[in-house]
Amino acid sequence: MSKANIKYVSIITIGDELLIGQTIDTNSVFIAKELNKEGLLLRRCIKVGDVKEDIIHAIDEESKYADVIIMTGGLGPTADDITKPLLCEYFGGKMIMNEDVLKHITYLFEVKMKRPMIERNRKQAEVPDVCTVLFNELGTAPGMLFEKKDKLYFSLPGVPFEMKNLFTTAVMPAIKDKFETNAVLHRTLMLMGIGESFLAEILTGFENKLPENIKLAYLPHLQTIRLRLTATGINETELNKELDKLFAELLILVNEYLVTDKDETIAEVVGKLLKEKGKSLSTAESCTGGYIAHLLTKHPGASTCYFGSVVSYSNDVKQNVLHVKPETLQQHGAVSEETVKQMALGAIAELKTDFSVAVSGIMGPDGGTEEKPVGLVWVAAAHQSGKVETMSFNFRFYRELNIELTALNALNFLRKFIFKNT
Amino acid sequence: MSKANIKYVSIITIGDELLIGQTIDTNSVFIAKELNKEGLLLRRCIKVGDVKEDIIHAIDEESKYADVIIMTGGLGPTADDITKPLLCEYFGGKMIMNEDVLKHITYLFEVKMKRPMIERNRKQAEVPDVCTVLFNELGTAPGMLFEKKDKLYFSLPGVPFEMKNLFTTAVMPAIKDKFETNAVLHRTLMLMGIGESFLAEILTGFENKLPENIKLAYLPHLQTIRLRLTATGINETELNKELDKLFAELLILVNEYLVTDKDETIAEVVGKLLKEKGKSLSTAESCTGGYIAHLLTKHPGASTCYFGSVVSYSNDVKQNVLHVKPETLQQHGAVSEETVKQMALGAIAELKTDFSVAVSGIMGPDGGTEEKPVGLVWVAAAHQSGKVETMSFNFRFYRELNIELTALNALNFLRKFIFKNT
Repeated sequence: MSKANIKYVSIITIGDELLIGQTIDTNSVFIAKELNKEGLLLRRCIKVGDVKEDIIHAIDEESKYADVIIMTGGLGPTADDITKPLLCEYFGGKMIMNEDVLKHITYLFEVKMKRPMIERNRKQAEVPDVCTVLFNELGTAPGMLFEKKDKLYFSLPGVPFEMKNLFTTAVMPAIKDKFETNAVLHRTLMLMGIGESFLAEILTGFENKLPENIKLAYLPHLQTIRLRLTATGINETELNKELDKLFAELLILVNEYLVTDKDETIAEVVGKLLKEKGKSLSTAESCTGGYIAHLLTKHPGASTCYFGSVVSYSNDVKQNVLHVKPETLQQHGAVSEETVKQMALGAIAELKTDFSVAVSGIMGPDGGTEEKPVGLVWVAAAHQSGKVETMSFNFRFYRELNIELTALNALNFLRKFIFKNT
Repeated sequence: MSKANIKYVSIITIGDELLIGQTIDTNSVFIAKELNKEGLLLRRCIKVGDVKEDIIHAIDEESKYADVIIMTGGLGPTADDITKPLLCEYFGGKMIMNEDVLKHITYLFEVKMKRPMIERNRKQAEVPDVCTVLFNELGTAPGMLFEKKDKLYFSLPGVPFEMKNLFTTAVMPAIKDKFETNAVLHRTLMLMGIGESFLAEILTGFENKLPENIKLAYLPHLQTIRLRLTATGINETELNKELDKLFAELLILVNEYLVTDKDETIAEVVGKLLKEKGKSLSTAESCTGGYIAHLLTKHPGASTCYFGSVVSYSNDVKQNVLHVKPETLQQHGAVSEETVKQMALGAIAELKTDFSVAVSGIMGPDGGTEEKPVGLVWVAAAHQSGKVETMSFNFRFYRELNIELTALNALNFLRKFIFKNT
């Protein structure tokens, strides 16, 4: 049997907590990304509260556009979670107890969570008899698949890691089983040090000559811009060739600003660079308070090259652990070229690494002076030979953003320093 | 002139990047939160791409529900940003150059960003003659306010810090100017160590007796649950009294699990506790790689009590900087009760603080063994008198989640330890 064509997908996220700003809806972001990877077009994404008429209206409305409607949330054990009975009614079924789900919930409570299981939890094992149950091994709320007029309707729990697991193992396979999907290929690169409008000027010619089936996306975030080429088609081998050729052209055009030709973070770039060169790294952080260390360790595999950090939030720690001279702190202050130099060298001496990077700055909102305003940051990168390079930045935003930008720029400064010194 | 009543608000976020999962839509979260604080009801939130008919359809559709429609995004300088001309046409105006905005954009390019300004940027100063310009001091894209059939339509730039600033300084005042708004008061508390369903059982009686104008919201996140009481009404003094009384009752009911009776993070609770007691803190982090330090420093004001951290990602750093004995690492391993004890005491000795907390664990995806599986974490809290307490956890999720949960539980363990030892 030949598969049907799919035009659009819609997402409906359900829950009052979304409409009061309590929860950041990362579920629809994850789903959007996964759909995009497979070349499936997300047309709209709707957030509604736990309100019966609003949920039904949203399903009706999205059914007009989409062949696949993915709902998340509203399946919890509390009184405000009304989605399951509502869907049961909407698709004309009745609730029945699913013994497999009940066994699983009982196991989770008795063995994993070691908490008393109550009637509310038992009820989570009830499902409409008109749905296919999508077994949720990571949680208590089962996913559900309904089919009506050749459209698929998925209902998934709102807990992100449960939803993600169900999406990958059950939702995407079910979509591919029913609908024809194209081959979709991506190439991504990341730039720093160039603005979006200026970049658009450079790439006008390149963009204009792209064939219909290949798109270029600008994905700016803070001071980085990702460029992504996406090709859609039937013949994967041909597509790959075509895309490789265009990506090579693109790389030449933006070479001056290129950080990586892969879809990875600057911390991952630095990590891979160290691994490749067989060098080790330590960090000495004042104003970023451990955030650079966090970026370097939040992805697996850093432990071989990244030895650790001294977060020297107080001046005492700068002196006692990193051996910054008291007279340097007195004469130049904690936020100064001299101090970050000594911090970087201190980290190398203490943590015994090939390279180090040190930062000290004023993140705000308080602590700025006329001479040293909020946003001023000094960065030093050092090599165990004693070589040190420094740079200063002036950011103009909020504390959290200043921390983020400091980390980003310090890692990029370090990346260039490692290149020059290996 | 008496003000009109407002029933609902809708948000439309615009941009292809939202539908391919590139951008996490934090704008609508911020707006939802701000609306909620003022007692304004957000009914729906729609994400659409940079597609003319979809944007127009969304505006038409939301106009049926809402008195205020807030749009963000789609105002950038690149070709795919079509919202401004579209709105101009929709509200029947023509584009004119706004000299104030042009002057501001020129200043940003020449003085702040020191980048060449091109025609695309100049065009950002053009606005429909039928809108009120909302001057965007932080960026190049001005906000706009349109009024039609007694409804307000705002269009704001998608860059979060620009949007936030415009929302606070221009959007909310304009809404309050046109519409009657109630007094809305909140009380929030945070719990750890109790599940949502079990909590719902405890609070059934309390919830049932709440008056119409006071609502209780459950806001679970990872292993914490926030409870928020929200009261809406005319007389603020009366409301405050009523709310205080109910909140006091609620506090007694959940006292066993209470972490804080304010809307703050566990890191802020620990920071305030230290300040109150006049004690200092250091951390020694292995598996969390600086994340606990980041949580303690991302909010301002930590520097007086929090001296810093030794992120000892490698065993060498555990030995060299934190003075963990080589034989301990050899006999018990890096993830062990013995090791975290020595790490905690090492941090106190090195960073000279009253308290410390140390963590070591296996965050995954690799590195687990049968004896020490992924998710195993040891935590130690220590006092400079030499007193140490330890605890182990078994998390069962993903790396990023394990890091988050380790930090959360380590801080809560430390909080209790400080209470017992001051």
